Amino acid sequence: MTESPTTSTTTKPLTIGVFDSGFGGLTVLRALLPLIPGAHYIFLGDTARLPYGSKSRETVARYAVSSAKFLHEQGADLLVIACNTATALALEDIQQALPIPVIGVIEPGAHAAKSASSQSTQSKDVSFRPQRSEVEKPASPPPTPSAKPNHVLVLATIATVQSRAYTHALNALGLEAYEKACPLLVPLVEEGWTNHPVTDDVIKIYLTEALKAAPATQTLLLGCTHYPLIEQAIHRTLDTIGHPLTIIDSADATARATAALIANQFPHRTSTAKPTCTFYATDSIEKFQRLGSNFLGQPVAEVNLIDLGG
Amino acid sequence: MTESPTTSTTTKPLTIGVFDSGFGGLTVLRALLPLIPGAHYIFLGDTARLPYGSKSRETVARYAVSSAKFLHEQGADLLVIACNTATALALEDIQQALPIPVIGVIEPGAHAAKSASSQSTQSKDVSFRPQRSEVEKPASPPPTPSAKPNHVLVLATIATVQSRAYTHALNALGLEAYEKACPLLVPLVEEGWTNHPVTDDVIKIYLTEALKAAPATQTLLLGCTHYPLIEQAIHRTLDTIGHPLTIIDSADATARATAALIANQFPHRTSTAKPTCTFYATDSIEKFQRLGSNFLGQPVAEVNLIDLGG
Repeated sequence: MTESPTTSTTTKPLTIGVFDSGFGGLTVLRALLPLIPGAHYIFLGDTARLPYGSKSRETVARYAVSSAKFLHEQGADLLVIACNTATALALEDIQQALPIPVIGVIEPGAHAAKSASSQSTQSKDVSFRPQRSEVEKPASPPPTPSAKPNHVLVLATIATVQSRAYTHALNALGLEAYEKACPLLVPLVEEGWTNHPVTDDVIKIYLTEALKAAPATQTLLLGCTHYPLIEQAIHRTLDTIGHPLTIIDSADATARATAALIANQFPHRTSTAKPTCTFYATDSIEKFQRLGSNFLGQPVAEVNLIDLGG
Repeated sequence: MTESPTTSTTTKPLTIGVFDSGFGGLTVLRALLPLIPGAHYIFLGDTARLPYGSKSRETVARYAVSSAKFLHEQGADLLVIACNTATALALEDIQQALPIPVIGVIEPGAHAAKSASSQSTQSKDVSFRPQRSEVEKPASPPPTPSAKPNHVLVLATIATVQSRAYTHALNALGLEAYEKACPLLVPLVEEGWTNHPVTDDVIKIYLTEALKAAPATQTLLLGCTHYPLIEQAIHRTLDTIGHPLTIIDSADATARATAALIANQFPHRTSTAKPTCTFYATDSIEKFQRLGSNFLGQPVAEVNLIDLGG
């Protein structure tokens, strides 16, 4: 019986730390599980100190570094910052504080936007069609007359927008960026109103304001891990206002970037075994289990309550 | 020249600590200033750890006690917990942790609801009128046919509702209580949408649900210090749905209860001099100054950034 070069049953499974301020990062874990099985995942939601998105850089960096250190102490071989705000404001601080590889969601998200933009550029059919039907879901919808494939709209928290981290990452790839803060979207998702007329109204207000300021937009990047839960509502709203866009979610892109990092740095530590998960939260474990399952797409097993101070 | 018996120019001015998780408590400070001038106020907004309203009792108590201790260390002679969630979940913990008088917002709010209820009972004109005009603002609007003056609806955060602190306080005064969690109202106020169709829609959804469950309601108690900023929108919505209610805001009631406590325990420490204020926040002082002025009704002077850990 031959053994795959990337499979080892003798070494300890790779331990991947995944960190978010709350529950949204579970959408990244959800993308990681099928792509990198055979690993042990430790997920921390810093729910006692959420949200990060409305707070200052100094406070977010302090919270994020202490959370990252906790996951390293629990044996993480590498760390995925599954939170846009923490990545935008504190990725360098975390990388400096830890001796293990640390990957965030912004670089992978920006590269996914670049890929979508390149596909649109290569497309032969860029004729104008003002409105996309509800049933058709093309990967790259036809642009509006003035839309340009390299113009990316980023929806994110106030803190992420103020950091301009997405603008820097997108500009470095030759893309134009417009960032729009959407502070009500996280509370609406957490209220469970993911398919609700009020949420549609709020999305319409934010998108109308953003597309008025950035009419050439052709790609929409979801710059917060809560937003994939309202992706359908965003699609619906874009149809309503007649400005269809390619929507990019950084969860899948981050999972692929993590798989590439592991193939490069831990080539003999992966297997095809079933992944295992341990969850930690800094506030109510009951709430984490209840809300978390919506983001993970499956029940969240036992959650451990920890105190990171504060 | 005679000196008022409650005025002393020789003793150090009374120092009143006022604490909230964020900015909402500034509506209580706003009510305190004209009622108790001649005092020095120290206000702390624990903005790095807000919101408290979605977190567990243990976490809120830990945050609230450390915040209260800070104000005591700064010289507070008494402490006003200008936050419904902190009062509901941690008043006893704070009282046990500090050697100074501590007053919360819930008892005063419940007594104000009792007074409103008594006034309604004494009123001769309780004839049914389904809709109140926009221009008329009677203190005690006529009830709907089934409304009962001792039935009180409390709008509050999830944590406050789960604590049932308002139900206990209202029941002790012979009033019936129904508590409704309204998690989107704080984010809407903080987004500045205090006079906005989306906020009206959200208020309508919450009030319709609550009044369906508690149709006999005649008094509405605003159980969160953010809500006074949307009192007009709530009035407007109640008119629209044809269920006018007497609205009680605990800020004024808390200020009166604080004045009574001072008259009793510090009779010679007040004066008619101009009050002075010092502000502290645990996160961005720029944001505190910017948002805080909406709640205080005047510009917020210099804010000091402090670190309470976390």
